[in-house]
Amino acid sequence: MTISIAHLGPPGTYAEQAAAFYVNWLSKNRQVEAILCPHPTIAQSLQAVAAGASQLAVVPVENSIEGSVTMTMDTLWQLDNLQIQLALVMPIVHTLISYAPSLDEIKTVYSHPQALAQCQGWLERFLPSVQLIPGNSTTEILQQLEQEVTIAAIASGRAAQLYNLPILASGINDHPENCTRFWVVSQSQIDTANPFLTASKSHTSLAFSLPANMPGALVKPLQIFAQREINLSRIESRPTKRSLGEYLFFIDLEADVNEAQMQSALDELTTYTEVLKIFGSYNVLSISASSSLSFENTNYS
Amino acid sequence: MTISIAHLGPPGTYAEQAAAFYVNWLSKNRQVEAILCPHPTIAQSLQAVAAGASQLAVVPVENSIEGSVTMTMDTLWQLDNLQIQLALVMPIVHTLISYAPSLDEIKTVYSHPQALAQCQGWLERFLPSVQLIPGNSTTEILQQLEQEVTIAAIASGRAAQLYNLPILASGINDHPENCTRFWVVSQSQIDTANPFLTASKSHTSLAFSLPANMPGALVKPLQIFAQREINLSRIESRPTKRSLGEYLFFIDLEADVNEAQMQSALDELTTYTEVLKIFGSYNVLSISASSSLSFENTNYS
Repeated sequence: MTISIAHLGPPGTYAEQAAAFYVNWLSKNRQVEAILCPHPTIAQSLQAVAAGASQLAVVPVENSIEGSVTMTMDTLWQLDNLQIQLALVMPIVHTLISYAPSLDEIKTVYSHPQALAQCQGWLERFLPSVQLIPGNSTTEILQQLEQEVTIAAIASGRAAQLYNLPILASGINDHPENCTRFWVVSQSQIDTANPFLTASKSHTSLAFSLPANMPGALVKPLQIFAQREINLSRIESRPTKRSLGEYLFFIDLEADVNEAQMQSALDELTTYTEVLKIFGSYNVLSISASSSLSFENTNYS
Repeated sequence: MTISIAHLGPPGTYAEQAAAFYVNWLSKNRQVEAILCPHPTIAQSLQAVAAGASQLAVVPVENSIEGSVTMTMDTLWQLDNLQIQLALVMPIVHTLISYAPSLDEIKTVYSHPQALAQCQGWLERFLPSVQLIPGNSTTEILQQLEQEVTIAAIASGRAAQLYNLPILASGINDHPENCTRFWVVSQSQIDTANPFLTASKSHTSLAFSLPANMPGALVKPLQIFAQREINLSRIESRPTKRSLGEYLFFIDLEADVNEAQMQSALDELTTYTEVLKIFGSYNVLSISASSSLSFENTNYS
């Protein structure tokens, strides 16, 4: 089986690392060949799956320090045909990559805004006077490092390896327990022999809007799940983009959409919501820090 | 009275525009002189008030298109001595500023990531092949425009005026009803003769954490307010930064903290929360698009 996986690029991003881990994990039960397809934005990697150009996308959902990745939620709401297959929780270890002979020579640090924010304390302590420049991904700047020794980038150790670049400092994130949750998303259930993907699921994600001007109406939807003792593991609001003060609510529940309790909860939920979208049920796979970082089964498009 | 107001800089940002509007509005009831103090980040403008260097900060809270400004919420939670005095809702009209003779000459567009996101559709249509570079504010790049005609910035019309720069296109935001809510924050109630600031308040904002591993526990706090018919106008979750899946909840309620119903609700709330922080009660002032943009009473520090 050959699958095409869309992710935020250029190669070496944490999304690509999660995608590569997923391919390796899938290969344990069945021979899988994967083509990794980097895209300039998270939105474009989801759109590639919605349009059928890739079978899967691996996208970041939330980070333990910086919170939700709003582009993932907004795009998932806009696209109608995507389902979550699996959640991956991956530890994030940032490294400082540069050709500078020492920290003193560095004048500018580039990275994704979330990565810069996650290393804020370290940067203030060790590089207090550098200019921080946010970009679209952690890896965007990597190919320019060789030309300019006063530039550094914050990215993964794997990215440094991939581009054969020198690491000046490792583990520079302020919170050592920093991790990011990714979703593996496809149009429909992917053909697989992996029992983890077909067994009963631990989580369901959905989103809904409420009739306008009824902000207090949020209590009802939450009660529906509380009464049935279905645990809510996350709630997030996003603007409807119609007017200030109107929100969409994104909810993660600890139950399978096929359970009878969930079916009756979702039936009742539709009586209170304006638009309800169910993004699917899935299990959560935690990637340990010591996971092998060799990915023999992946090719680059 | 002379007051020092901290805001995100350099001069010309929307936060500064909101601050200047606030000063003008305050001057209607009493002579007020203000010194506007630009800071490189929103966090630093709040910290300036917490440390007593400025009396007030004007900070963005949420935008109708791009949602919450997470740095404002995270910093407010960390600092213990700040209270919200007033909310300002301001229409956002983006302009494209550049010395380029026409759109065809532009190669790079700089702005704050929220502004770039709010003009995404316009940029794809009229500048499909330019490079978009996110920065710390909308005004950071303005002083470099004169040296390089292939560069453009997205900022307010007022910023163009302030730096005497040419506007190439106006009203380029994708959603015409784009607006941002700001909070005016101080250490304590500011000495003022303005009745709007001392009258009973329409909104209260607070945030709390829940005991660990009790995600379903969110229903109880919401019920407390629903039972008393206190409307919840916004709920937002932020990571506790301890571990993935643990959240702080930020809530805006349509009631004054001094009402008896609110007092009893808050008393009951403390039995369910781990840490509860009340950011104060305040009224909301809507700035109309036609508001005068002359600010005679403001000086720059």
